[in-house]
Amino acid sequence: MVKAHVTVHLKPGISDPEGNNTLKALQLLGFDGVVAAHTTRVWTIELATKSKDKAKEQVDAMCRRLLTNPVIHDYTIKVE
Amino acid sequence: MVKAHVTVHLKPGISDPEGNNTLKALQLLGFDGVVAAHTTRVWTIELATKSKDKAKEQVDAMCRRLLTNPVIHDYTIKVE
Repeated sequence: MVKAHVTVHLKPGISDPEGNNTLKALQLLGFDGVVAAHTTRVWTIELATKSKDKAKEQVDAMCRRLLTNPVIHDYTIKVE
Repeated sequence: MVKAHVTVHLKPGISDPEGNNTLKALQLLGFDGVVAAHTTRVWTIELATKSKDKAKEQVDAMCRRLLTNPVIHDYTIKVE
């Protein structure tokens, strides 16, 4: 069994409405010290294989087909 | 400036429809080797303070007030 962690984040320059709205909400709640808020999504995928290389290749294909939007997202894959 | 990373994940036993649907979708796309899929959200919060302890305390309050749902979420805070 191989576990892969895929970290999906926005490409530089892409606007981050979720982060911006969270920042505004935190400031409205009285947290004046906050200057930035961003969010990242981490997928944990378990695969029934023993080869880490094969797992990484498969997870990369999953990212391209389902987990990420190549127009706005960058991703990194960590296999353990 | 202090940067805090908040990792939000579901409590054990809480159903994970997003993970389950991703698992089903990946299997429908032909990725037969996948046995589990889960998602975690990571918030990156930047604070205009120099005290790491104070930052951690503030971020903990943010989690309780906005970033997490205490009924279904556990969270960990890492300050750097």
